[in-house]
Amino acid sequence: MSAELIEEVILPALGGEQRSNVLADAAVISLSGQGEIAFTTDSYVVQPLEFPGGDIGKLAVCGTINDLAVMGAKPTALSLALVLAEGMEIAKLRQYLTSAGQAAREAGVSIVTGDTKVVQRGGVDSLIINTAGVGEILSQARLGFDRIEDGDAILLSGPLGEHGLTIMCLRKHLSLSSELASDCAAVHELTTELIDRLGAGVHWMRDPTRGGLAATLADLSRATGRDIEIDQAAIPINRTARAASEMLGLDLLTIANEGKLVAVVSAEAAEQAKAILSVQPIAEHAAIIGKVGRVDDRGGGVVEMITTIGGRRIVQMPYGEELPRIC
Amino acid sequence: MSAELIEEVILPALGGEQRSNVLADAAVISLSGQGEIAFTTDSYVVQPLEFPGGDIGKLAVCGTINDLAVMGAKPTALSLALVLAEGMEIAKLRQYLTSAGQAAREAGVSIVTGDTKVVQRGGVDSLIINTAGVGEILSQARLGFDRIEDGDAILLSGPLGEHGLTIMCLRKHLSLSSELASDCAAVHELTTELIDRLGAGVHWMRDPTRGGLAATLADLSRATGRDIEIDQAAIPINRTARAASEMLGLDLLTIANEGKLVAVVSAEAAEQAKAILSVQPIAEHAAIIGKVGRVDDRGGGVVEMITTIGGRRIVQMPYGEELPRIC
Repeated sequence: MSAELIEEVILPALGGEQRSNVLADAAVISLSGQGEIAFTTDSYVVQPLEFPGGDIGKLAVCGTINDLAVMGAKPTALSLALVLAEGMEIAKLRQYLTSAGQAAREAGVSIVTGDTKVVQRGGVDSLIINTAGVGEILSQARLGFDRIEDGDAILLSGPLGEHGLTIMCLRKHLSLSSELASDCAAVHELTTELIDRLGAGVHWMRDPTRGGLAATLADLSRATGRDIEIDQAAIPINRTARAASEMLGLDLLTIANEGKLVAVVSAEAAEQAKAILSVQPIAEHAAIIGKVGRVDDRGGGVVEMITTIGGRRIVQMPYGEELPRIC
Repeated sequence: MSAELIEEVILPALGGEQRSNVLADAAVISLSGQGEIAFTTDSYVVQPLEFPGGDIGKLAVCGTINDLAVMGAKPTALSLALVLAEGMEIAKLRQYLTSAGQAAREAGVSIVTGDTKVVQRGGVDSLIINTAGVGEILSQARLGFDRIEDGDAILLSGPLGEHGLTIMCLRKHLSLSSELASDCAAVHELTTELIDRLGAGVHWMRDPTRGGLAATLADLSRATGRDIEIDQAAIPINRTARAASEMLGLDLLTIANEGKLVAVVSAEAAEQAKAILSVQPIAEHAAIIGKVGRVDDRGGGVVEMITTIGGRRIVQMPYGEELPRIC
């Protein structure tokens, strides 16, 4: 519904040259003779405001860092704009901002500008945070849909669904035998390491947030007109997340992640990319999960998964009831 | 209250180097060997969403352009993030976005990236827009509190209070004998013209939004430790705005503007600055309204106004009940 709203209402209304640009998660801006910067924005409306593994403050900082990182940029500076309801508990506000500040410091990124609006109670659901970010595009980065070739390897930095399922279980008061926590984390060290070490061997990156891995791969296939094949047995699994998804009747592939990376690299660079990712604590379970290229003669633009029992399943762009307010 | 919240809760919680930075309306970021950019953010929560002279879309674009402009930057790109309630009327959303797109085109600025979140009805008061912006600092710009000297002239680009009073009259269902409209406009052509033509003769600029001219001058006096003297008779007046402020018992000096510029220039550049501003349609009533420098021997940091009847009045930082949701 959100995608429809954006394509059918928002972009036509903004009009003109805005139209083609706003679709990207982050934009690349050429400065007058001064290189390129990436620029992005996201509003965070997650409910509840805190959850195992993070809170709205950490999420708002990591999410925007990740949008810059997957564009091949070194995140430089963030803005942080608060809209809070009059009745907001100050101790809680302080807690979420401490968490945001800490996430920024850990990532080596400065929060340089801000804004605060207070609205009457009922006007807003306690707290909304918008973060925008700018980053300098790494000079060795050569990323884009146009860089993708048949035979390219698809890597995933770790197990799926931890963020979305954590939020979902909290909302449904579902308790699990083992602890499930959001994967909320900044992935820019993964992306900069890949680009530093593999340069033009890295062809495209994305953080699989809303719509999960399924949406990321569907976008990739649609934009390139190429088929994609992934191997279910190769996808790293968090057993608790899998159990939760089964109890809720949800497909792990479609659930939001907030600290994962999907990277498409040349076939030759695949094993090295996996090794580069695996030494990072947040990517210790990184895996090569599939490849780009026609899997049969039906033509371009299909995402297929070889299931663990050896069958084939089409992976579609998730639609219909999406998890509301997971980020 | 908002200032207290920012200084006592928000900045300490964010901590570290963020602390000193977030106070500025816009930040200046040095890129690695690539010059400087200005970066700013603002959330717009104005109620009602439309008003004579503009709407939330136009306001969100112009407001962020203005924050960049007064830093001496050429606005380059904007982000636009929407948080809207489920029940939001699509025709209205389209109208506000059309208005935002048009304001951006007229200003020659691109909206390059965006985000849309839909929350349940009641979660948000129909529509909140956040815009962040980046701009390239003009190479001739030499702006800062440290550039201000005794004898500098203070210019104001036009009459005060039109935005805040328009919103206030709408809310109080107050009808006036003549039409009052928000001054909502982008001032970047004023600022770039001043810098292009006067270079280092321009010492400091600000758009007098929340807290009006009084807050702008109080900030200036506090930051520089210098006295400021303004001449009430020299301040351009909109008679309808003045009548409205009298009916509402408000001081025109403290009311928000959304398309005005305060510029501090060297004494020698004052008349030329006035001439440069006056040829622009949105600044045809531009005036030299005062000067920086000790007005008597009481020491630094006082803003005084010579009233139309020849008296002297201290202009204070507005406090207490501020107009809520005027932007």
